[in-house]
Amino acid sequence: MAAYTQDAILLLGDSLAQGKFDRAGLADRLACVYVRKMDVINRGLGGYNTDWAIPVAEQVLAQQHEQHRVPRVQLLIIWTNFVHLVNMVRSPASAYYSPNTRVILITPPPVNTHQRTDRSFADTESYAEAVKEVGAQVSVPVADVWTEIWEAAGWDELACEQFLFDGLHLNAAGYEIVFNSIMKIIEERYPEIHYEKLQTVFPHWSEVNVNDPRPSLVKRRVPIV
Amino acid sequence: MAAYTQDAILLLGDSLAQGKFDRAGLADRLACVYVRKMDVINRGLGGYNTDWAIPVAEQVLAQQHEQHRVPRVQLLIIWTNFVHLVNMVRSPASAYYSPNTRVILITPPPVNTHQRTDRSFADTESYAEAVKEVGAQVSVPVADVWTEIWEAAGWDELACEQFLFDGLHLNAAGYEIVFNSIMKIIEERYPEIHYEKLQTVFPHWSEVNVNDPRPSLVKRRVPIV
Repeated sequence: MAAYTQDAILLLGDSLAQGKFDRAGLADRLACVYVRKMDVINRGLGGYNTDWAIPVAEQVLAQQHEQHRVPRVQLLIIWTNFVHLVNMVRSPASAYYSPNTRVILITPPPVNTHQRTDRSFADTESYAEAVKEVGAQVSVPVADVWTEIWEAAGWDELACEQFLFDGLHLNAAGYEIVFNSIMKIIEERYPEIHYEKLQTVFPHWSEVNVNDPRPSLVKRRVPIV
Repeated sequence: MAAYTQDAILLLGDSLAQGKFDRAGLADRLACVYVRKMDVINRGLGGYNTDWAIPVAEQVLAQQHEQHRVPRVQLLIIWTNFVHLVNMVRSPASAYYSPNTRVILITPPPVNTHQRTDRSFADTESYAEAVKEVGAQVSVPVADVWTEIWEAAGWDELACEQFLFDGLHLNAAGYEIVFNSIMKIIEERYPEIHYEKLQTVFPHWSEVNVNDPRPSLVKRRVPIV
């Protein structure tokens, strides 16, 4: 019985999206800066692969006939390379078509195979390349976390450990790079939904008429498409 | 276009509920432990008073005729003393009646008037007493943050500064006390919604049949009323 109050940023992906219990993940950081403006819905599912992401997305995204009564997703952040997911919201033929939903893709971080011996460095690099190709192909901006972390580590696999707590998953410093990369894309490509541009859904307390508060306490829609 | 996927914990209150940008607030902490189980909806509004909370609650809670299509609020946390808010969900005559929503009230922390000279220590103490009276009157458990912080500070107003960053608002150590107090009430009064008792909405990756994933990737309802 929670009414539709705020529009949403929806985060789809695996354990990198889900985040860890240390409250330094991407969803937490976005929720803090978007407080009272948009809700951040975390649908990161640890250990899930891109194939499994399809039936999940079909249950997490609303179909067209339901869209008028559920929170509008102003921004969909997909931490996987699957073009199918982008087409679900972008293709007019899709049951989940939502033309006003902005989309951002994210590449995975490089792996530190000295810490994580079951993974291949070249595989994450190819995966990151594939995400960038998908982004270019469907005209969706990509937060290239792979390259940003690789550069921040001085192109040294061992030095990646300052951003990865187990060689594979990001620590707070790693998520800081992800968050900054996402905010830079929002600033450049989707400036109308930058948190600094959005008014709060309920007005600031100083805007409320203390003698007659009720008329000013009406929730406001985010004034964007 | 975010479909109803997870039930919710809804947080109503002022700046103490809203939290600060340091990601150590109550909503962030609950979101971390309830990840993949329940969404935490933060409707804390800094500077709002208990009168203003009524029109806000009327727009944040769903009415009975809408309740079947929006996330069920399994737990409503109210950081104000207003009995009206409790009755909105508890009274069968209310448009917002939701008999299966559990409710917890929270007392404010004590104020450190050495840091915050515009407030009175006695006022926060009376306010905390009023919250406890309301809780007793309507049979709703109260997280008595006032007493817990007062005891942790050794009944010394100056020592409260270890829990208050400006004499009035909580820091991370203060929110740690709030979070533990809420979790203790959940454990004792509402154990069926303790995060350790809830299954994830989508199954753990090891439960997915890799040869035929789709039938196992169906979202599961929280198996509680």
